[in-house]
Amino acid sequence: GGIGSKLCGMLGKERGRGWRRRGNLLPATDGDTKTMTFLQEVVDILLAYIVESFDRETKVIDFHYPNELLQMNNWELQDEPATLDDILISCRATLKYAIKTAHPRYFNQLSTGLDMVGLAADWLTSTANTNMFTYEVAPVFVLLEYVTLKKMREIIGWTDGRGDGIFSPGGAISNMYAMLLARFKMFPEVKEKGMSSVPRLVAFTSEHVGILHIYRSGHSFSSFFPLGFVPFFVSATAGTTVYGAFDPLIAISDICKKYNIWMHVDGAWGGSLLMSRRHRWKLDGVERANSVTWNPHKMMSVPLQCSALLVREEGLMQNCNQMHACYLFQQDKHYDLSYDTGDKALQCGRHVDIFKLWLMWRAKGTIGFEAQIDKCLELSEYLYNKIKDREGYEMVFDGKPQHTNVCFWYLPPGIRYMEDKEERKKHLHKVAPVIKARMMEYGTTMVSYQPQGDKVNFFRMVISNPAATFEDIDFLIEEIERLGQDL
Amino acid sequence: GGIGSKLCGMLGKERGRGWRRRGNLLPATDGDTKTMTFLQEVVDILLAYIVESFDRETKVIDFHYPNELLQMNNWELQDEPATLDDILISCRATLKYAIKTAHPRYFNQLSTGLDMVGLAADWLTSTANTNMFTYEVAPVFVLLEYVTLKKMREIIGWTDGRGDGIFSPGGAISNMYAMLLARFKMFPEVKEKGMSSVPRLVAFTSEHVGILHIYRSGHSFSSFFPLGFVPFFVSATAGTTVYGAFDPLIAISDICKKYNIWMHVDGAWGGSLLMSRRHRWKLDGVERANSVTWNPHKMMSVPLQCSALLVREEGLMQNCNQMHACYLFQQDKHYDLSYDTGDKALQCGRHVDIFKLWLMWRAKGTIGFEAQIDKCLELSEYLYNKIKDREGYEMVFDGKPQHTNVCFWYLPPGIRYMEDKEERKKHLHKVAPVIKARMMEYGTTMVSYQPQGDKVNFFRMVISNPAATFEDIDFLIEEIERLGQDL
Repeated sequence: GGIGSKLCGMLGKERGRGWRRRGNLLPATDGDTKTMTFLQEVVDILLAYIVESFDRETKVIDFHYPNELLQMNNWELQDEPATLDDILISCRATLKYAIKTAHPRYFNQLSTGLDMVGLAADWLTSTANTNMFTYEVAPVFVLLEYVTLKKMREIIGWTDGRGDGIFSPGGAISNMYAMLLARFKMFPEVKEKGMSSVPRLVAFTSEHVGILHIYRSGHSFSSFFPLGFVPFFVSATAGTTVYGAFDPLIAISDICKKYNIWMHVDGAWGGSLLMSRRHRWKLDGVERANSVTWNPHKMMSVPLQCSALLVREEGLMQNCNQMHACYLFQQDKHYDLSYDTGDKALQCGRHVDIFKLWLMWRAKGTIGFEAQIDKCLELSEYLYNKIKDREGYEMVFDGKPQHTNVCFWYLPPGIRYMEDKEERKKHLHKVAPVIKARMMEYGTTMVSYQPQGDKVNFFRMVISNPAATFEDIDFLIEEIERLGQDL
Repeated sequence: GGIGSKLCGMLGKERGRGWRRRGNLLPATDGDTKTMTFLQEVVDILLAYIVESFDRETKVIDFHYPNELLQMNNWELQDEPATLDDILISCRATLKYAIKTAHPRYFNQLSTGLDMVGLAADWLTSTANTNMFTYEVAPVFVLLEYVTLKKMREIIGWTDGRGDGIFSPGGAISNMYAMLLARFKMFPEVKEKGMSSVPRLVAFTSEHVGILHIYRSGHSFSSFFPLGFVPFFVSATAGTTVYGAFDPLIAISDICKKYNIWMHVDGAWGGSLLMSRRHRWKLDGVERANSVTWNPHKMMSVPLQCSALLVREEGLMQNCNQMHACYLFQQDKHYDLSYDTGDKALQCGRHVDIFKLWLMWRAKGTIGFEAQIDKCLELSEYLYNKIKDREGYEMVFDGKPQHTNVCFWYLPPGIRYMEDKEERKKHLHKVAPVIKARMMEYGTTMVSYQPQGDKVNFFRMVISNPAATFEDIDFLIEEIERLGQDL
């Protein structure tokens, strides 16, 4: 804290002397003091925002329509530079209209909450401002990625944590990388000769209900062969986005084994349940997968973005993707080249997403993540129990949720007893969007809704926010009823 | 600065009272003070690191081999939580062994330097911790992306800045998105029916020398048609990675027009020269492209990652990629849905990469970016002029560099006059790796090297670091000679 105390002294003096007008920020000569004062001003704005975000008296959002928001500040880019005062004003304006994703009543996405250690780690990552492609430019981060991926593979259940993996920019890209690996594994010639060198490939994935479409009919894989189609990839889902449902991984792995098909588990949302001794049985069989997607930025509340792809076979990622860019992966470097990870993915450069996960893991320990996850599932069970028989509510699917997803309709008194089923459905479809719009206008809470197949708009509550409590669940229910009773 | 002054008071008191032992960080009740104190301690560590990074007396890197570095700290993940003291120690250790990418003598990558406003913006982005997919959860950032992409399209030269675009996780992904758009534009059925519904497609891209392979023989496009191959995509490079060469865009656009082929310009490295009135002629014809990749995290020194794909045709990105995920892009939302950008890309969630670019642009103005870019090109011309006729140097390609890439061999006295050409080449190949290894061990500077085709290892100097000066260029030359003279 030596610099800190010095800084406090400096800030007092500097702030009184119109520091913004004199000289330039670093790298300008003698830019040190001005830079530290400027960054400290920004940090003050951020600290105030953070404290406010956790305060239930604060709005989750100060909502404005796009056209209004465009008018509320000068957002245009100019030829001429702005003053540092203007920069600070822009920072304040940006946060004023931002969503407070740390707010205990923000439930809108699978990624919610703001972890203080994760945030500190992300600030450090920005300051280090480097790229994951080589050990040369990211020595510590590359090692931490290695350590963390190994730990995640141990948790999956692969012997001694062996295998491979990478952090990628989100679940969609992780899943795409898995698919490329599966294709390369079955047809290595695809890398050189392209898609015309391979038969027509078929990939299978879960329906939203979380049962593999093909798996249900049992013999369907083989029915593709006479048509010249080759099934090469099955993506089983561990935690679907809307229902939070888990595919039966053991049964699926048996089929994949029989037909020699790559088994991928998309655990972007549900993978984190592996950290919980109470809930990890929902992923039984995951250790039989060839690859697993697991996004710590969802259920583990690591700041966005943080998505891992774990791969059981060693060496495959490199073989599949390497391009030998000789300006990065010189073969005569003076250190162990196996730490240069840039050839494992289609991307060349990769953002440093590891440090926030690693530092949070240090701060909480595995048991801390487990407690956090268990608590979210407990809250969702509380919500489920509270509304499943409550007047005015209907559940979208039967039985207890497998993840923290609780899907339900709220029926305002006016439509609760409508006899005409079609009329009732038509009205009900409009209820969630109006309640949601009102939530955003009042700024009191945020929860998602959507239609699904023949089901009209329903609320999908998910809980990944470590700041949420039983009282916040009570509040949500009261708020839905308050905002929806006249509909 | 109200919070700031309060904070200084609190910190003084708190720090004297063993704050780390009492209570928890937010969201714990009464976690405010502890959180602010903790984050302020981290910020102090970061501020000290920043000031140090710009100091030429500091090493660019405190280098250790992977196995050594693994021993130098306890990097393992544990079941049990660590103390906040340990977290602060981990932050210090991580930075101790990090590369100082802000250092005025760090030239190792296309992305170098650390902009103070960009850094502040990235800290704010982490604090806001949200996702670009909908206006609902990122209202300001979505608008700023809209404003900034429009401005970039104006600079490209598309009428009124019309068109489309997106920020993606790096140049490789931006280029991939362009290729998907080109394929969809020519064969929209590919989205539903897959690759087997389309003929064999051929894409063309630059050789490293920056001349399109096919373009050189003139009639080559048409020679593919009788074979059943369909050329669908030309990627012209504006600024190659190693030589910094620019393809002749006007000539290429004529051919693309004749054969009705999508023209993409990969300006990941060179696109930023569009900001410079002095250098933008190197991209003449870019306005004829269908799409352009432009990475502000390279030549504009925006913190990593920041890569834009700009697209001339409106609506195409949405049509090509939309999946209608009804849990995100509800059609009955209460605001203008054209601001929900998540359906424009294969990714669903996207990291917020826009704010740092936008805030830097505000702070510098267009003319500030121009001055910064012009200065880097001036430095590289200075380097070129200094070594082109200097004893012991040979240039890798003829003529003045088009970008800031200066590629050269340094020949130590011992091999300078070797008569046996093959022997000389063999020795020369080993020179750059050894000098580079020594640079890293002394930690004085960092510059890249590589072989290319039949050319043995040479240095590739690139300048994107706004902290670099003429003296730093002089230093680099002296250092290469100091470290290499005995070889």
